[in-house]
Amino acid sequence: MTKYESIFQEVNLASRKLIGISDAKINQVLEDLAGLAISQTDFLISENQKDLDRMSPTNPMYDRLLLNPTRIQNIANELLQVSTLPSPLQHVLEKKTLENGLSIEKITVPLGVIGVIYEARPNVTFDVFALALKSGNGLILKGGSDAESSNRAIIKVIHEILVKHGLPTTAFQLLPAERESTKALLEAVGYVDVIIPRGSQGLINFVRENAKIPVIETGAGIVHTYVDETADLEKAKAIIFNAKTRRPSVCNSLDCLIVHESLLEKLDELVAPLVDNEVEIFADSSSFQALKSDPKIQLANETHFGTEFLSLKMSIKTVSNMGEALDHIAKYSSKHSEAIVSENQEAIDRFLMEVDAAAVYANASTSFTDGAQFGLGAEIGISTQKLHARGPMGLAELCSYKWVVRGNGQIRK
Amino acid sequence: MTKYESIFQEVNLASRKLIGISDAKINQVLEDLAGLAISQTDFLISENQKDLDRMSPTNPMYDRLLLNPTRIQNIANELLQVSTLPSPLQHVLEKKTLENGLSIEKITVPLGVIGVIYEARPNVTFDVFALALKSGNGLILKGGSDAESSNRAIIKVIHEILVKHGLPTTAFQLLPAERESTKALLEAVGYVDVIIPRGSQGLINFVRENAKIPVIETGAGIVHTYVDETADLEKAKAIIFNAKTRRPSVCNSLDCLIVHESLLEKLDELVAPLVDNEVEIFADSSSFQALKSDPKIQLANETHFGTEFLSLKMSIKTVSNMGEALDHIAKYSSKHSEAIVSENQEAIDRFLMEVDAAAVYANASTSFTDGAQFGLGAEIGISTQKLHARGPMGLAELCSYKWVVRGNGQIRK
Repeated sequence: MTKYESIFQEVNLASRKLIGISDAKINQVLEDLAGLAISQTDFLISENQKDLDRMSPTNPMYDRLLLNPTRIQNIANELLQVSTLPSPLQHVLEKKTLENGLSIEKITVPLGVIGVIYEARPNVTFDVFALALKSGNGLILKGGSDAESSNRAIIKVIHEILVKHGLPTTAFQLLPAERESTKALLEAVGYVDVIIPRGSQGLINFVRENAKIPVIETGAGIVHTYVDETADLEKAKAIIFNAKTRRPSVCNSLDCLIVHESLLEKLDELVAPLVDNEVEIFADSSSFQALKSDPKIQLANETHFGTEFLSLKMSIKTVSNMGEALDHIAKYSSKHSEAIVSENQEAIDRFLMEVDAAAVYANASTSFTDGAQFGLGAEIGISTQKLHARGPMGLAELCSYKWVVRGNGQIRK
Repeated sequence: MTKYESIFQEVNLASRKLIGISDAKINQVLEDLAGLAISQTDFLISENQKDLDRMSPTNPMYDRLLLNPTRIQNIANELLQVSTLPSPLQHVLEKKTLENGLSIEKITVPLGVIGVIYEARPNVTFDVFALALKSGNGLILKGGSDAESSNRAIIKVIHEILVKHGLPTTAFQLLPAERESTKALLEAVGYVDVIIPRGSQGLINFVRENAKIPVIETGAGIVHTYVDETADLEKAKAIIFNAKTRRPSVCNSLDCLIVHESLLEKLDELVAPLVDNEVEIFADSSSFQALKSDPKIQLANETHFGTEFLSLKMSIKTVSNMGEALDHIAKYSSKHSEAIVSENQEAIDRFLMEVDAAAVYANASTSFTDGAQFGLGAEIGISTQKLHARGPMGLAELCSYKWVVRGNGQIRK
């Protein structure tokens, strides 16, 4: 047994004990952890500083890595928020009694052991622990090596609270930051029930390529909004501007505007707020012709479609009908969030039915794709696959179910 | 693009059209297919004979491969049965209206494209087609090479019905029987949404090791029944006999009897019906001592635990308390079906809560783990994993969902 395997086995064994912990106790643990995180602010910040010292302040990851008193307060607030949510466990999803008297119930249970692989965002360590504990799951964390000191400090604080409440620290472990531990985790068949990667497309691709256990892919959003010939242009203008500029770095932000060709003469007006706000635009040939009087507009090439920009950049595709818009989306979308702006009910219904994405919108900004907006209470990520969970994943999505059958001697003929 | 990739792309594109087909039309297709399967009995049997001619009649697969008029009638009946089930699509799972007037609905949709890899069971070809069509999913089939002529004949019959109804045959395709096509299917990222292997543990292991897309593991059942010190021995005797002998070749059949040590003196009585029916018993040292007057009882070694026998064989493990029984199950179970026989309500509740399996039973035979028994109407397999679907999988488990958001210009602050 490798050193990793013994960790995986330990977590797996300890996770079996979590199902017996009352929700009241879990909530108390989370409240106490929020308090301890704040009282240990100095310790957390000084350990975080060790990581920051090893990174250049111009590295885009620097800001994500940084902990400060405000951020620790926000983390504590999120721990308290999770403690106020209803337990996702022991819900009866179905119930029936067979003619022979056998009672069958389908009830929610923890997934078991969750593996989370993430980059240099130490807040994820607290965040994911809270969701795992609340849903009765064991947890194996593999954080980025850039955040090793921060993560070690955070797990120390978490373990301190677990010990105080007599709960098994072995159910929640942080793997060594070395690269080999990721590979071992991805192959921990029999010990780990699901892997959730949180981070860049490169990380997600690596996980998909190497995992021998089920993975939930989260994150990547190549997002389109189609403005058809019947669209209310004022609504369209506001929706596009909001979807692109509200938080360009998040996955629900707009990447490609699709316009019906009949709107080309009003296109400059539609994109004016974007141009005024320094959004770089890559226009296909038709839309480029319509916009080229503005020297800031660039001609798109193939690489500008199917790209998640995560910044103030956007491509434009011109179509002559809905079918072309649907085909473009089917070809380039990452099936995260897709929208239509239209006043034609038939077109709206067709779009909402035929577009295959976690969230499909009519006449609204794709910025709403978010666990809190959808009423999930907390979010571990936004799934872009179709198995198990799609779109924002909350506590319910960290659960499985089992069939509980009670009899008094029934046998099957 | 490889020859396989163009097939995958074709299925993926065509599958997008399936969501627009009415349930009434789908049911008509299934009814017509049932009729055509029967009227083409001679053709199907003669093509099946070509496969049978290449296999030795003593091969255990021979019987599974065989088609005859009765079996084709059964297949037709199953097609008709699927046509009577309610559509699993367009169900509203959740519905809410945000304060800003945004309407959000969570509705069921097809998974997209399902890949099924199976061995020499030609009935699976009809079976899986019916479930895929009914749930709006495209389908890529990879059958065993031993059944190639049979499968080609069946897909020809299926395509004939699709053409008659003006539906795209390209949405339902059978891959060439060559081995490379399996590997290609397992790597069809972006085209296939889920792979379901149906067959031996070896096949399932191969799929798990090589798939780059989500897999639902089905089948393997290493099943225990624990008889505790309070058990009603008559119930226990009947339950054990039924779970072991009703259909020993299926996944819900009993593999290991766990007995409390206080029952050792009555163990011979408990297992007498099994011994009388030629069940080979591998007993651990304590139970062997109790049973050794019977020369047919064998002493178990480690390999007899954690084995799915799929035949008239069973191991016995002796424990001195519930904790040991739970540990034994956690160590060796495949998380399929697990049972306790007990008259102690506290012990029952603990067992049902702590045992991690798709189906957990008190005082009943594990033979009931089955889609029809659980009321699912039809079954594509029994999942032994915890993501997406657990236990028997029916039409609902071949669906995902999407969030449909309707607004009138809403943007997010």
